[in-house]
Amino acid sequence: MIDIFDIAHKTKNAFLKTMNLENDIKNQALSAIAKKIEENKKAIFEANEKDLQSAQTMLQEGKINQATFNRLKINENKINDLIAGLNDLIKLGDPVNKVLWQKELDEDLILKKISTPIGVIGVIFEARPDCFIQIASLLIKSGNCGILKGGSEANNTNTLFAGLLNEALDEINYPKNAINLIYSRDDIKKMLSLDEYINLIIPRGSNALVKFIKENTKIPVLGHASGICHIFIDENMDYNNAKKIIIDAKTQYPSACNAVETILIHKNWNYIEELKKSLAEANIKIVENPENFAHEYSDTILSIKIVNDLKEAIEHINKYGSGHTDSILSNKQENIEKFMNLVDSACVFANCSTRFSDGFRFGFGAEVGISTNKTHARGPVGLEGLTIYKYKLFGKNQIVAPYAQGEKKFKHKII
Amino acid sequence: MIDIFDIAHKTKNAFLKTMNLENDIKNQALSAIAKKIEENKKAIFEANEKDLQSAQTMLQEGKINQATFNRLKINENKINDLIAGLNDLIKLGDPVNKVLWQKELDEDLILKKISTPIGVIGVIFEARPDCFIQIASLLIKSGNCGILKGGSEANNTNTLFAGLLNEALDEINYPKNAINLIYSRDDIKKMLSLDEYINLIIPRGSNALVKFIKENTKIPVLGHASGICHIFIDENMDYNNAKKIIIDAKTQYPSACNAVETILIHKNWNYIEELKKSLAEANIKIVENPENFAHEYSDTILSIKIVNDLKEAIEHINKYGSGHTDSILSNKQENIEKFMNLVDSACVFANCSTRFSDGFRFGFGAEVGISTNKTHARGPVGLEGLTIYKYKLFGKNQIVAPYAQGEKKFKHKII
Repeated sequence: MIDIFDIAHKTKNAFLKTMNLENDIKNQALSAIAKKIEENKKAIFEANEKDLQSAQTMLQEGKINQATFNRLKINENKINDLIAGLNDLIKLGDPVNKVLWQKELDEDLILKKISTPIGVIGVIFEARPDCFIQIASLLIKSGNCGILKGGSEANNTNTLFAGLLNEALDEINYPKNAINLIYSRDDIKKMLSLDEYINLIIPRGSNALVKFIKENTKIPVLGHASGICHIFIDENMDYNNAKKIIIDAKTQYPSACNAVETILIHKNWNYIEELKKSLAEANIKIVENPENFAHEYSDTILSIKIVNDLKEAIEHINKYGSGHTDSILSNKQENIEKFMNLVDSACVFANCSTRFSDGFRFGFGAEVGISTNKTHARGPVGLEGLTIYKYKLFGKNQIVAPYAQGEKKFKHKII
Repeated sequence: MIDIFDIAHKTKNAFLKTMNLENDIKNQALSAIAKKIEENKKAIFEANEKDLQSAQTMLQEGKINQATFNRLKINENKINDLIAGLNDLIKLGDPVNKVLWQKELDEDLILKKISTPIGVIGVIFEARPDCFIQIASLLIKSGNCGILKGGSEANNTNTLFAGLLNEALDEINYPKNAINLIYSRDDIKKMLSLDEYINLIIPRGSNALVKFIKENTKIPVLGHASGICHIFIDENMDYNNAKKIIIDAKTQYPSACNAVETILIHKNWNYIEELKKSLAEANIKIVENPENFAHEYSDTILSIKIVNDLKEAIEHINKYGSGHTDSILSNKQENIEKFMNLVDSACVFANCSTRFSDGFRFGFGAEVGISTNKTHARGPVGLEGLTIYKYKLFGKNQIVAPYAQGEKKFKHKII
């Protein structure tokens, strides 16, 4: 029986050690994990096979769907991807202990703003067991600690991964209890109530999971409940590029959160019928003026609406969108600027596919997730989203009184 | 009867207009407010007098204390401070629409990270009615909108301030419903439940108020429930500077959140008894080894504890502190570094008073509050804490498919 309070307490203490680890140590940890995975492929496949067997039964009984089943499987490719991911992370600079700026408040009174890890991160993910290693390694690289809950279908694989990871960490004397795996669904609820211990929750999974978590905790949640992304076609946009971008944004990976769900078309655009025909040919189902414009299809289905002007398009997006990613296709610079400034979304694009909204494509090296929050981190989130900062003030025995009395004045000079 | 849902809805719509206002317009608004206050001093004093009269009765009946009564009063000085504050804010640069960085993802595919306002901010403040103008002006400067709840003792003054402010905003055609005042205590509870409309809550008031709010909302709260600040005196620290800094940190403003509450002294320090004597002479009451080290005195009272070494000091602070501000007095560079790296607080200081922990002293120009959060904003928060960012991606009809298939590669070059 796992005591989640005990785990949370120990993880918080572990953080006091990991928060200031050298980048070298963190990279050693990642390298040791990669080695451990490489050396234990066979055991991983065996554990995974057990999960797959149970899942096969669940699939036949209709308790899980084919997509969930597929995500569960760990093959040679996935192992190689995991190891490549660990090696990529090693190459990235330390997100922690960076001097964000420094300022001379006065002579011999130097203020430095330094990036730091956040603390204990609760992560809840579904079927994919490779997620465990990916997330744990992001937490390690950023000096955070974590309590991770995987999908129950993947218990055998997750348990093995957690064992291997902690063996690797032990071998290099990494602080104990930095990365913890929990199992039961009941523990999620307990975890969501531990705002004294857990500083941030990251859900990775279905919209329903994210929604449930957002509704059941006071801890900040980094994520997005839905991805209702739009493309607006302005009146003078050329046909071929519009068609190409929309087909990419809808079909390149239809279940992705950054896939487009609604096309808004300026009423004067000349190719409305032509576009519909092309989309049908690309096996995209079109729903004109659906009842619910805030529905995420996650499939090759598109809502289409004809709008009178740019203003109506912007209003539609701000009303029905999820603040994720919205794109304008236009040749008018003025309209592009207006759209980008007045659409209140994490990502506002001009003349390109919504599918670019992604941490790797943005060049962040690693992706924690995509956030539609309005505080802390918004849009695709890299390692930086797992950091905050502290202020270090280096003095020479100064006191506040003479400044408060006006005898001394601050310089406030960025240095 | 105020309908808080209706207000929240209107405020959210107002934000879609204020989020992209030019700095000039926002400065015109601040200037119009300053003028309006200047021109209506007499009416302000009259409204304030009504509040003071009711408060006088409450004071006599013991329903409020003298400190609350004092904070209620608006005099010529406070009006001048308010106007000076507005003028200072006008001089600050626009915190919004700043290019934080830009990156060439590929040829003709330029990503810009741009600072933006957050949205609708709920602010709850207590007795001081000048707070209304201060906070509203910070929200205006940062392009945010607000729903503000003042203390009921100050209803007359707050109502007049809100009226004057909105008259000023109307005169320059500022978006309607950007800044709203609400009155009833019941509305606070409703407001705390409106996470669909309100993006951030800022409580300004007693620890009890902040604690209540943190415990009763899922909306991110920017603030600190308590300020348990420490000073650690290392073994070789000289006596005079230690004494000077501690007396400043405790007595310069004892009820401030950044005033020191606990002194940790290395057991080998030679001046322990001498310091106690000096503190007593400075009218500071000393409590040695109190039962509760996590108690905020907010008075000229100090806890003292003798520790064996730096490690014990750090552990004590991480256990009993509130992650606000902690200072080490030491001549050993190694100990200073260790303390600053391993104390998990928003502000870690060396050889200076904890009272420097303040947005104005840090040179932020304006202070929203001091945060002990581990996400979004930590430590003293200036206008930057009222901003987030969006990503603007400028393309030339690019789609994701060729990148996903490895035909094209990203450049990811910071430009």
